[in-house]
Amino acid sequence: MRGKFVTVEGIEGAGKSSNLDFVQRLLERAGLRVVRTREPGGTELGESVRDLLLGHRHAGMADDTELLLMFGARAEHIARVIEPALASGSWVLCDRFTDASYAYQGGGRGIPAARIAALEDWVQGPLRPDLTLLLDLPVATGLQRAGKRSTPDRFESEQQAFFERVRTRYLELAAAAPARFRVIDAAYPLEAVQAQIQQAVGDFLDDRT
Amino acid sequence: MRGKFVTVEGIEGAGKSSNLDFVQRLLERAGLRVVRTREPGGTELGESVRDLLLGHRHAGMADDTELLLMFGARAEHIARVIEPALASGSWVLCDRFTDASYAYQGGGRGIPAARIAALEDWVQGPLRPDLTLLLDLPVATGLQRAGKRSTPDRFESEQQAFFERVRTRYLELAAAAPARFRVIDAAYPLEAVQAQIQQAVGDFLDDRT
Repeated sequence: MRGKFVTVEGIEGAGKSSNLDFVQRLLERAGLRVVRTREPGGTELGESVRDLLLGHRHAGMADDTELLLMFGARAEHIARVIEPALASGSWVLCDRFTDASYAYQGGGRGIPAARIAALEDWVQGPLRPDLTLLLDLPVATGLQRAGKRSTPDRFESEQQAFFERVRTRYLELAAAAPARFRVIDAAYPLEAVQAQIQQAVGDFLDDRT
Repeated sequence: MRGKFVTVEGIEGAGKSSNLDFVQRLLERAGLRVVRTREPGGTELGESVRDLLLGHRHAGMADDTELLLMFGARAEHIARVIEPALASGSWVLCDRFTDASYAYQGGGRGIPAARIAALEDWVQGPLRPDLTLLLDLPVATGLQRAGKRSTPDRFESEQQAFFERVRTRYLELAAAAPARFRVIDAAYPLEAVQAQIQQAVGDFLDDRT
């Protein structure tokens, strides 16, 4: 049986990394094989593109360029990792996917959603995540948490207003696709966040049986 | 007055480099400011992408990936180099452009032309070359000439059948857009090739006055 495609989304400081670990454990405890991956990146080529995208060297790249490189890495990721894993029956757990393009390049940088949708269809065909956990929290809280970490990358250096637009777009995406999205209130302490995630993942697993 | 956009296309060994020099001299002798550039590449970001595309390290990349990266570099090239130059009244002389995507990724690798056209429209809007010189010659002659040069890159290592498909697609493109294309028989010695180029460029300049 084909595996399911689970993605985790959220702005900087939402706690994606530790909560991805948690989701992976939940799925594995349910007896599922899990392939964990991330975007941009997920393949050797994708990691090279990730370096181009996140490095400061090309900080002035055009918005269209950024979006095309992102989808280029995504095409490789789908062909080499995601589709083979799903076809083999593994579940794929991915740190960010196309919703991030809508949120960052669309909401953040102002690329029209229709232009992103055209590339989404071009690259993905019918492939969409089966479940998306959106870790949502106020931008100020997220930036404060992220600020405790190492040197900010190019995206993290953007202004707060940018992240407000990103967060709003994420919430709009969730509202438009309630069957796929679960919005997790990530402003709570970790245990309370994980309780929500456990509920959401548990419901999704129950619905399959 | 907006400048004109001139591209030079051809398979390996067609003599693009020396003939690009010749075209540049012809245009400059006519009193035109010329911005000379190339694809893939043409910007710092584009040269980084060019390294990804032409290097052997990522030799197994998916066809869609290759095409998206190519158009990503192209978006940057248009935004940073080609459009500003044309808008300022300079002529742009470019070593390969989107016709090469149709020829190599379309004809060579079998990506449907409609998928390439979708990206062409997405990236370029209405921008198309005003004049394209296609340096055409038999594949065997071209490969023989190219073989005299340094280590072949990934594209040059492809089989002869691949280049036959590339050449055929180039000729199809020229046949479909006769107002834009001039097909130059590049199998002749250099002086005879340049006589044809001089005629073609001269006609194009005459038509403008």
